[in-house]
Amino acid sequence: MFTAAVLGSAGYTGQETIDRLLAHPSLEAVALGSDSLAGLPASALDPRLNGDRPPFVTNPEAAASGADVLFLCLDHDEAATFAPPPGAVVVDLSPAHRLADPAVARLWYGDGAGEAWSYGLPELWPPHGPLVANPGCYATAALLALAPVAGVIDTAVVDGKSGVSGAGRALKPGSHAGAVLENLAPYAVGGHRHAPEMAQQLGFPVCFVAHLLPVRRGLLVTCYVESEAELRPLLEAAYWASDVVRVLPEGTAPELARVQGTDAAEIGVFEDGATGTAIVICAIDNLGKGAAGQAVQNANLALGLPETEGLRLQGVLV
Amino acid sequence: MFTAAVLGSAGYTGQETIDRLLAHPSLEAVALGSDSLAGLPASALDPRLNGDRPPFVTNPEAAASGADVLFLCLDHDEAATFAPPPGAVVVDLSPAHRLADPAVARLWYGDGAGEAWSYGLPELWPPHGPLVANPGCYATAALLALAPVAGVIDTAVVDGKSGVSGAGRALKPGSHAGAVLENLAPYAVGGHRHAPEMAQQLGFPVCFVAHLLPVRRGLLVTCYVESEAELRPLLEAAYWASDVVRVLPEGTAPELARVQGTDAAEIGVFEDGATGTAIVICAIDNLGKGAAGQAVQNANLALGLPETEGLRLQGVLV
Amino acid sequence: MFTAAVLGSAGYTGQETIDRLLAHPSLEAVALGSDSLAGLPASALDPRLNGDRPPFVTNPEAAASGADVLFLCLDHDEAATFAPPPGAVVVDLSPAHRLADPAVARLWYGDGAGEAWSYGLPELWPPHGPLVANPGCYATAALLALAPVAGVIDTAVVDGKSGVSGAGRALKPGSHAGAVLENLAPYAVGGHRHAPEMAQQLGFPVCFVAHLLPVRRGLLVTCYVESEAELRPLLEAAYWASDVVRVLPEGTAPELARVQGTDAAEIGVFEDGATGTAIVICAIDNLGKGAAGQAVQNANLALGLPETEGLRLQGVLV
Amino acid sequence: MFTAAVLGSAGYTGQETIDRLLAHPSLEAVALGSDSLAGLPASALDPRLNGDRPPFVTNPEAAASGADVLFLCLDHDEAATFAPPPGAVVVDLSPAHRLADPAVARLWYGDGAGEAWSYGLPELWPPHGPLVANPGCYATAALLALAPVAGVIDTAVVDGKSGVSGAGRALKPGSHAGAVLENLAPYAVGGHRHAPEMAQQLGFPVCFVAHLLPVRRGLLVTCYVESEAELRPLLEAAYWASDVVRVLPEGTAPELARVQGTDAAEIGVFEDGATGTAIVICAIDNLGKGAAGQAVQNANLALGLPETEGLRLQGVLV
Repeated sequence: MFTAAVLGSAGYTGQETIDRLLAHPSLEAVALGSDSLAGLPASALDPRLNGDRPPFVTNPEAAASGADVLFLCLDHDEAATFAPPPGAVVVDLSPAHRLADPAVARLWYGDGAGEAWSYGLPELWPPHGPLVANPGCYATAALLALAPVAGVIDTAVVDGKSGVSGAGRALKPGSHAGAVLENLAPYAVGGHRHAPEMAQQLGFPVCFVAHLLPVRRGLLVTCYVESEAELRPLLEAAYWASDVVRVLPEGTAPELARVQGTDAAEIGVFEDGATGTAIVICAIDNLGKGAAGQAVQNANLALGLPETEGLRLQGVLV
Repeated sequence: MFTAAVLGSAGYTGQETIDRLLAHPSLEAVALGSDSLAGLPASALDPRLNGDRPPFVTNPEAAASGADVLFLCLDHDEAATFAPPPGAVVVDLSPAHRLADPAVARLWYGDGAGEAWSYGLPELWPPHGPLVANPGCYATAALLALAPVAGVIDTAVVDGKSGVSGAGRALKPGSHAGAVLENLAPYAVGGHRHAPEMAQQLGFPVCFVAHLLPVRRGLLVTCYVESEAELRPLLEAAYWASDVVRVLPEGTAPELARVQGTDAAEIGVFEDGATGTAIVICAIDNLGKGAAGQAVQNANLALGLPETEGLRLQGVLV
Repeated sequence: MFTAAVLGSAGYTGQETIDRLLAHPSLEAVALGSDSLAGLPASALDPRLNGDRPPFVTNPEAAASGADVLFLCLDHDEAATFAPPPGAVVVDLSPAHRLADPAVARLWYGDGAGEAWSYGLPELWPPHGPLVANPGCYATAALLALAPVAGVIDTAVVDGKSGVSGAGRALKPGSHAGAVLENLAPYAVGGHRHAPEMAQQLGFPVCFVAHLLPVRRGLLVTCYVESEAELRPLLEAAYWASDVVRVLPEGTAPELARVQGTDAAEIGVFEDGATGTAIVICAIDNLGKGAAGQAVQNANLALGLPETEGLRLQGVLV
Repeated sequence: MFTAAVLGSAGYTGQETIDRLLAHPSLEAVALGSDSLAGLPASALDPRLNGDRPPFVTNPEAAASGADVLFLCLDHDEAATFAPPPGAVVVDLSPAHRLADPAVARLWYGDGAGEAWSYGLPELWPPHGPLVANPGCYATAALLALAPVAGVIDTAVVDGKSGVSGAGRALKPGSHAGAVLENLAPYAVGGHRHAPEMAQQLGFPVCFVAHLLPVRRGLLVTCYVESEAELRPLLEAAYWASDVVRVLPEGTAPELARVQGTDAAEIGVFEDGATGTAIVICAIDNLGKGAAGQAVQNANLALGLPETEGLRLQGVLV
């Protein structure tokens, strides 16, 4: 049994990480950190967290808890300056430590950019060492779709659509339900923060546009690529042994509803009849495989635990 | 004052056409045809249609009503074999008469393909003659975005997203609310019926993928194109005088919510910072500019009325 | 032609009031006040407000514009202390001036309670004098359902359900889309601010519970009453001449979708087969008949204009 | 280890029952029956059901499988005439066997009414004998709220709101997403089939109205009762030892989002400040505690297994 602490428990990714820890057979949550909730019982976050859960402590107290693994669910500028306790595994769910080129990092995150940690996307790049940068949600989906075929393409169009929880729990005009319901809103068009992550890992830039869906959770990317090669065998070879990523049979497209509430991913591969363009579609839950689920998966690997322990690999069937 | 008849009143496009006719100062609905509702009062379709509205008649009776303009809101195989009354303007909202190449038409619609009528998309190709094929909803949005720049590009990726009313009122598993709510579902990937319409009007094929949104109405296409030329001036030149299509200022993206319930369109133009790809986004209401609104606009032109008479050009502001 | 000014244009009710004014044949918006938007063009609020709309001014400037009618779309504490310009009609959309009993007003609104103005719900209590308190959205629906039968009942259960725009555009945790989508949340259970309005106008208290729906706009109340009398004739008698309120035929229930985006109301009357309890259901748009539409209706009456001029009495049919 | 068979796997309740069985440590699904899917692999229902799941068989084949427990997820007229195999536990999720009074049963279900089986709502009436009638979804929520206080009240108003999956997967106009999204629709007002279930178990009739919410799953009832007694202690006493039903602390109301995807229930108790009416609110997932979860709970009890084995008692936290 290893011990775990969460910093930034009150946000969506913190809450989802707690959710995974509560069901994890080999990780025990010993400190739930939140500067806004410190001193309150766990039920202050959610009435379902009753009983014998530990009360919230401050983030510094959680950091000093001596836990074997720390999950940083903080803003990127807080995560950038966080000093990892010696010997601990630290998984950062913020973008602070994802970009290896300091100039690129500063361009997108300014002073909030930290040094690069191991970019941990287990199916493609398992983490090495105790400091792990957890990928962005859009980047995770795009990389799952494109990295296995990166050798036979040289760019891609990535059209992304995400539920509102991807924008976090902070109150913003664009996350007000009156702006989200019965709407579809493209955002950060021409320059989204997850694009440089994709480029770094693929080795070439992609054209990425994000759209906000009127759904609570879930994310889907539709990727368009030109290639002489057949892509399906490359994708099937990449994931045939995975319990997390399912390559769907020919003719079946991923759907948000089948991955919501889970840490799994679905991939579909198609060829356009009119232009021959290849279409690779990937669906994940932005809070699962796109955040907390992947963070636990990375922690499992860094601690030497079975990779998928504690993950939610199947949601309710309807 | 001209007289109008609707055939197929019970479907979404029929109902929306009635909606426009009721508010039209120069068109009077004299016959509402529906084989399923014939004999019933107008309120059988919707309790708001009370008072002195004419009761429903059969579709053949509506066709024989002597109206100056007929709106065909029928399935494409019924529309394909419809015999236009001499002298009447006929606007077909189905896909039966859109494709000029009989081989292509048969490929997509089989025996339900009719001969080509005038493809009427008023801002780009005003209808000529009394028989008008009203464009498809996805095609309308993609063509508004791409036709003005077709001279400086040679293909495009068109990523489309539509509300469920685009699939019609017929009961299908994919339109069941349990399959639509909190979901996003790509469909007809690799071969959608609106793609050949786009290709026909642009002169080159495009790669088009459609996605079903959990919204009642509204449609948005995100188009990706490569071009040496600057696209914004071409789009602004195409629409500066239009009361229907708004090219938004730099940095502003179209949103579904601003066109829902209207016959207007919004276009945004962007350049991707990472790849230089141009991004043209167009939002319409699939039942407005994408169907009934455009049908009335076409009818206005065919009858010599002011182009936008009776259109809903602005929805509620929130 | 009368002139109108809006104070507090940036909120939902302000925006909807502007919407109604733009389409009003006898009211011209001469000053759009907003302390947060002052100095910016009208398009800063919404890209659809382009062209020759006046730019925003401060709220005090709008108040001093000399307009014939002022619409106060302010917080209740600002409205409570607002000094009406002599000779102007002032319609207050906040709750500041609704409650006649100062003790009750202070109990619910503290120092933000103003003196009582004429409570203007045109079908039931047309406004008298130039200072008009516009009813709350829930109160409007409940009173439309219950006031015509108040003589034959002595209490009621009012179960209310509203879209998120009823909570305003201010950023609150409960209005975050992540808290609203795929959810239903009862709120202010046991003590909601609109309950004393209902009691004041009915002459007896009611038990009212509000629930937040995952919809953008629209509100429905289901009212349960015990009575020896038959209620349908009383309701039909109250509204037979109204262009705003429709009493639906037996067996037909109101639906949100039919009143969204409009200033109309639907009422349905039923008897429970198991208990004999009478059920009166009323649906309105919380921003239409529940706010801006009723405000314009009140202004029309106060200015001597036709009551429904400029109102949106029918939305799109689908 | 016991064996289980599902009849009617293709509907929502069948699919959810399969979902529970796949995670159940002591029940093994040995036969998945579906007349429409017979012969197809499990993945024909959902791509997530891959691998070594048994293929579908006909419903009669599933009935003859010799399984220890059969879950009937059939239409009520099929369930009414189903002949239970000797020795098997049978849990009927349809309404066929819920009503004890044959006259009442015939009134609501006509020839589709079967004889009464043990009405199994474990927290209130654990099943006795091998033939169990699983309660309706609305009835479950209303009875959880009202049965513990039935001794101190003599009627109630029950205002129910449910997601669309409560109406089943069959294609009906009212379940079309175009009729559900951005809408709220009261239905079966004055006479809903679950009302006689409530009356039978409570011993007095209640006034029940159902409303269709624009959500995929989840159900909430707001119950209004008059009583001299304090209700909270009675409810807390009824459920203090339950792992399924949570009575929330004072001031906290149940929310759909916290029970979706689970087999748990939340109850809140309030007193109305204006009238003294007591308000008891209960939220469940209509497919969980309202159907498949409760069916598995009943099966556990009938088989002598731990009551909550295989249940989903906590959903994702966000």
